[in-house]
Amino acid sequence: MVNQVQQVEGCWQSTKGESSGASNSSGESSKEGSRCSTPVLDADRSDRLQEKMRKRIASGDQWFSLEFFPPRTASGAVNLISRFDRMGSGGPLFIDVTWHPAGDPGSDKETSSMMIASTAVNYCGLESVLHLTCCNQTREKITGYLAKAKHLGLKNIMALRGGYPTGHPEAESYQQDLWHLKEKVDAGADFVITQLFFRADTFLKFLDDCRAIGITCPILPGIFPIQGYQSLRQLVKLSKLEVPEEITKVIEPIKDNDAAIRNYGIHQAVEMSRVLLDSGKVPGLHFYTLNREVATVEVLRQLGLWIEDPRRPLPWAVSANPKRKVEDVRPIFWASRPKSYIYRTQDWDEFPNGRWGNSSSPAFGELNDYYLFYLKSKSSKETLLQMWGEELKNEESVFEVFTCYIAAKPNRNGQKVMCLPWNDEPLAPETNFLKDELEKVNRCGVLTINSQPNINGKPSTDPVVGWGPPGGYVFQKAYLEFFTSSENVTALLKVLKKYEPRVNYHIVNVHGHNMTNAHELQPNAVTWGIFPGREIVQPTVVDPVSFMYWKDEAFALWIEEWAKLYEDESPSRMIIKYIHDNYFLVNLVDNDFPLDNCLWQVIDDMFDLASPELLSDETGLQ
Amino acid sequence: MVNQVQQVEGCWQSTKGESSGASNSSGESSKEGSRCSTPVLDADRSDRLQEKMRKRIASGDQWFSLEFFPPRTASGAVNLISRFDRMGSGGPLFIDVTWHPAGDPGSDKETSSMMIASTAVNYCGLESVLHLTCCNQTREKITGYLAKAKHLGLKNIMALRGGYPTGHPEAESYQQDLWHLKEKVDAGADFVITQLFFRADTFLKFLDDCRAIGITCPILPGIFPIQGYQSLRQLVKLSKLEVPEEITKVIEPIKDNDAAIRNYGIHQAVEMSRVLLDSGKVPGLHFYTLNREVATVEVLRQLGLWIEDPRRPLPWAVSANPKRKVEDVRPIFWASRPKSYIYRTQDWDEFPNGRWGNSSSPAFGELNDYYLFYLKSKSSKETLLQMWGEELKNEESVFEVFTCYIAAKPNRNGQKVMCLPWNDEPLAPETNFLKDELEKVNRCGVLTINSQPNINGKPSTDPVVGWGPPGGYVFQKAYLEFFTSSENVTALLKVLKKYEPRVNYHIVNVHGHNMTNAHELQPNAVTWGIFPGREIVQPTVVDPVSFMYWKDEAFALWIEEWAKLYEDESPSRMIIKYIHDNYFLVNLVDNDFPLDNCLWQVIDDMFDLASPELLSDETGLQ
Repeated sequence: MVNQVQQVEGCWQSTKGESSGASNSSGESSKEGSRCSTPVLDADRSDRLQEKMRKRIASGDQWFSLEFFPPRTASGAVNLISRFDRMGSGGPLFIDVTWHPAGDPGSDKETSSMMIASTAVNYCGLESVLHLTCCNQTREKITGYLAKAKHLGLKNIMALRGGYPTGHPEAESYQQDLWHLKEKVDAGADFVITQLFFRADTFLKFLDDCRAIGITCPILPGIFPIQGYQSLRQLVKLSKLEVPEEITKVIEPIKDNDAAIRNYGIHQAVEMSRVLLDSGKVPGLHFYTLNREVATVEVLRQLGLWIEDPRRPLPWAVSANPKRKVEDVRPIFWASRPKSYIYRTQDWDEFPNGRWGNSSSPAFGELNDYYLFYLKSKSSKETLLQMWGEELKNEESVFEVFTCYIAAKPNRNGQKVMCLPWNDEPLAPETNFLKDELEKVNRCGVLTINSQPNINGKPSTDPVVGWGPPGGYVFQKAYLEFFTSSENVTALLKVLKKYEPRVNYHIVNVHGHNMTNAHELQPNAVTWGIFPGREIVQPTVVDPVSFMYWKDEAFALWIEEWAKLYEDESPSRMIIKYIHDNYFLVNLVDNDFPLDNCLWQVIDDMFDLASPELLSDETGLQ
Repeated sequence: MVNQVQQVEGCWQSTKGESSGASNSSGESSKEGSRCSTPVLDADRSDRLQEKMRKRIASGDQWFSLEFFPPRTASGAVNLISRFDRMGSGGPLFIDVTWHPAGDPGSDKETSSMMIASTAVNYCGLESVLHLTCCNQTREKITGYLAKAKHLGLKNIMALRGGYPTGHPEAESYQQDLWHLKEKVDAGADFVITQLFFRADTFLKFLDDCRAIGITCPILPGIFPIQGYQSLRQLVKLSKLEVPEEITKVIEPIKDNDAAIRNYGIHQAVEMSRVLLDSGKVPGLHFYTLNREVATVEVLRQLGLWIEDPRRPLPWAVSANPKRKVEDVRPIFWASRPKSYIYRTQDWDEFPNGRWGNSSSPAFGELNDYYLFYLKSKSSKETLLQMWGEELKNEESVFEVFTCYIAAKPNRNGQKVMCLPWNDEPLAPETNFLKDELEKVNRCGVLTINSQPNINGKPSTDPVVGWGPPGGYVFQKAYLEFFTSSENVTALLKVLKKYEPRVNYHIVNVHGHNMTNAHELQPNAVTWGIFPGREIVQPTVVDPVSFMYWKDEAFALWIEEWAKLYEDESPSRMIIKYIHDNYFLVNLVDNDFPLDNCLWQVIDDMFDLASPELLSDETGLQ
C-alpha cells in the first residue's frame, strides 16, 4: 500500500473541456448581457480547483486535502465510500485517489482507481483528483485515460512521478530534481504535492529552494501520520526514505503497542503541521490517510482544520461533477436515495436551467436488475434479515419494522432497524421533529418513506434545517410520503376533498393507477431559500412527471431489497409481495406553510373514516 | 364614427403561428417529459381567446368585451390609451379596435387601427381583437395586414362584414344572410359579434335562427348604450337601423338634455342586457363604447360584470403579446415605466426561462431621440411647467418638486404634482406606506424615483400588496432608488460599510462610474410569491446588468423631459443640467425582509455624516 504514496507530483486541470462548460453554464464567466439561469449559491461551486486555492490563499483560510488508494475488494469499496461521506463532512478542499497499476486502474471495475474517483466526485460530491502514473506509458494510453476521466466528470489529474522534498531516490541530484519540477510546472501544473517527510525543516528548505528557482505555484506538504510499526517499516522500504533517529528512538520501544504508536503518530503529525502552518509559507496540508479515518481526523481536529458543522450548500447532497454544478433543483422523492437519483440521471448532457431535464434530455434512466455496487445496501443479508424480520407473520409485522426504524428502537429480536429499502441512513435530524407522529401512523399501517416539517423562514445557519450561505432564510412546505392499503386510500380520497386546495396529493399503485389534484406537469416547490443579493433558490420540488419514475423504483424496492431476502413462495415473501401488489404510494403537500402542518389531521381523519365500523357502514357490508 | 360599428362579423384566430408558439413556451401543451421553465400563474394566460370563452361558458362565468375606434389625433390616442388602462382594470375578456379605412388603418401612424390595437395588446396587456374589413380588398393586401398584425402580437382578427341580427341592409333576404353567416362560421370563425340592436327579442330570435341552421359557436350581442341624441341620429342614418317607437317616444322630449339621455341610455342598456343574460343563451356582452367611459362602465357596474378589485397576475403590468406570455421576471427599475421597458425589449424573439434576455438576445433597445408617442408624458408642456416649476432657483427648488409629488400636495403655485419624468402616475398604494419617510428624505435632497416596503408573507389576496392566484403568500425586500449629490454619496459609502452584507447597493453617475457590493452578474430577487401547487415565482429583481441600461434612461429623462422645458442657457435649465451631470443614481436593497426596513436608518446615518460640520471636519476644510 505504500506504493500508493510514492512519486507524488504536480497537478493539472483540464482547462478547455469541462471547466469552461461549467463556468459558462453558471453564467459566471460570460458578460455579453447574459445572466445565469440559476443562482449560484456557493460562489466557489463552479470554480476550478486552482481558483479555489487562490481564493483560500488570498483570504488566509488554510485548508486540508485527503489521499486514498483504491481498495482490493468490492466490500472494501463500499466501506471506503461510506468513509468518503464521513470524511467529506469535515470539509477537505479535495480528495485524491491514487493510481494502482496492478488493479486495472482505468477499468470499470468497482475497485479501479477510475471508478473510485468517479464515485467520490459524482456520488459523494467531493472535489476529486485522479492520479495518473505517466512514466512507462504510451501517449495513446494516457489520452484514453484522460478522455474517460473527463467523461466521468473528473477534471483534476495528479500527474506522477517526482516531488520528493529531499530529491527523488532515482534523481541524478537534488538540484537536478528541482529543475525537473520547474519544467513540469512551466508545462502547466497548477500546484504541487510532495512525498511524505518527517521533519518540517525538510519541507521548508525544499519550498525555499523551489521558490528560489522560480516555482511560484502552491506547494503542499504531504503529511503522513504514523499509524503502526509495520506500515512505517514497509513505507521506509518502498519509498527509500529514512526515518529520523528522534522518531525511531520513540517507536522501537513501543512497537507492539498499536495504540501507543498511533497516539505518537498523531502527536508527531500535529507538531510538524503546526510548524509548517505557522511558517506562513504553507497554505494547506495534504494527508496520506492510508484509507484510515481516526488518526487523520484527530490530527485535523487538533489543528482546528476539521469543520465540525459544515454548512450544506443545498438541502441535498450536491454532486461535484462539473456537468452537474448548475443543478439546483431536484424532485424530493430521491431525498433519501440521492445516489440512485444521480445514477439514474448520470448520462444527461446538461441540467438546463439548473433543472433535472427538459424535452431534449432523455427520461430518467431505467431501473435495471443490474445495480451499481454503491447503490446496494451497506448491510449484509444476515443483518437485513435481523432488522426486517427473519419471518414475517402478516402486514402488521411490516408495520412494526417501519415503526422500529422511525423510533430508532430495537425490534423484538433486540436488533436496531438502521435502514429501510427506501432509506439508506437513520432518520435525518429535521425528521426527528415529526418522530412521535410518524411512529403513531406507521404503527397503524401508514408506512412513511419520506417526510419534512413545514418551516416558515428559519435562518439559513440553523443547525438542523439550515442550508446555503449565511444571512438567508429557509422555508419548507410540510411533506409526507407513504405506502398504505387501498382501504385507507379510499377513505383518504374522501377526506382530502375537505382539504382542497390546501393539500396537494398524488396517489398511485404499482400498476400506475394514478389519482391527483395537482397540475399534470407543474412542479410544486417544497423547499426554498431567500439569500442576500441572490435570486430565489428552490432546490426541492414535488414533480408530477418524475413521481411516476420514482414510483417504479419505490415499488421495485419492496421486491428487490426485501422480498428477495426470503425463499420463493415463503409466507414472508408473499406478505411483501402482497403489499407490493396492493398498496398505494401516496404523497401529500400542505401548501399553507405559515400555518400548523395539517397533514397529521388528514391522516387522523382517514383513520376515523377507514375504521371497520364506519367502513362497513359506508360500503353496506355488515 | 358610426361607421365603425357597422358590419361586425365572425372572429378568426390564427392557429398555427403565434398561439402554438405561446402554448409551447408555457409548457402547457407539451408532454414529452418536459416541464415549463416558468410557473404559469394564471392558468388562462396563454389560452387562445376561443379557449378562454369555452372555459367561461363551461363555468357559467359571464363576460363583457369593449369596442373602440382609432382616434383622429395623436393626443386623442394618448387619451384613449389611458382609457384602455382604466377600462382594462374592470376585467374585459377582450377589447377590439375597429378598422378605419380612411385613417390609413394598416400604417405605423400613431392613430392607425393597427398601432392602436398593438398598443392595447403590448403596453396595456389587453387581449385584443383587430378588425379587418375584407370586402373590396385584394388577397395580397389582406395577407400583408395579417402578417404585420402577427408580427405585432395581434393574434385575433375580426373579419368584416355581416352580422346584423335583423339581416344586413344589403342582404337579399334575412334567410340568405343567415346562410352567409353559416358559411363564414364553417370556414373557421371562432365566434360572432352582432351589430347593435334595440330590443332583446331581436337578438334572441336571431340567435335561435342561427342555432336552427347549425351555427354552434358563441354569438355575442352588440350592446349600444345610447349616449346622446346626435350620435343616435347619426347612427340610425349610417346603419340604416330603425329606432323603435318606445325609445324615440322617451328621447324626443329630452333631446336637449344630454345627462337625461345618457341616464336613459344606461337604463335601457341595463334592462335589455338583463333580459339577454337571464335567457341563459348569452355567455357575454359586447359593448360599443364610442370611445367613452362613463356610460358603459355604469351599465357594467349595474349588471355586476365590472370587476372592482381585479387581481394582478403579477406585480407589474403584464403584456398580452403571445410572445411575452412566458415572461415572468423583470428588473425593478422600470416598475414605474413599464411601457418604456416593453418598448425597449419589443424586438426580442423570446423570453428564455421567463426572463428578460440571455446571451442569444440583443441587449436592451437603445434610448433614441425618437420616442414613441405613448412613452411621452400625458401632460402638456404648460401643465408640466406648472407642476415642475416655471422657474427653478436652485437645487432645493427641485427637491420641493419631488416632495410635492410624494406628498400629493399642491406646490407653491397651487398645482398638484401628479407625475415626474420617472413616474407616469401618482404614488402606488403600497408606496403610501412609506410616504412620511419619503417626504422627509426628498426634502433633504434624496430624490426618490422608486421604492417598495418589505413584506414578510402577506396573503396573495391582500388588496394593496397582493398579486397572483388566491391561497398564496407574497414577499418583498425593501427597495429604495434615488438621485443624490456626490457629497451625500461620499457619506453613504462610509455608512454602508456598517450594513454589510445586509444591504446591497449600486451607485452610478451619468458617466457610468459604478460602485457596488453586489455580484457583478447575479440578480437579487426583491419580490416573490409562494402559491399552492406551484414553483416559486420571483417577478421582480434588481439586476446589475440591466441597471446600467436603466441608468442611461434615468439620467436622460432629466434632460429630455425636464431641462428641455426651459430655454437654452436659462438658469432653470442649468440647474437640471447640473443635477444630471453631478448627481448619482443609487439603489439600495435591505436583504433582511423579516426585520424592520433598515434603509431609513441608512439614509439618516448618511445625513448625519454628510452634515456640513462633520463633512468639513473630515475633508480638512474649515
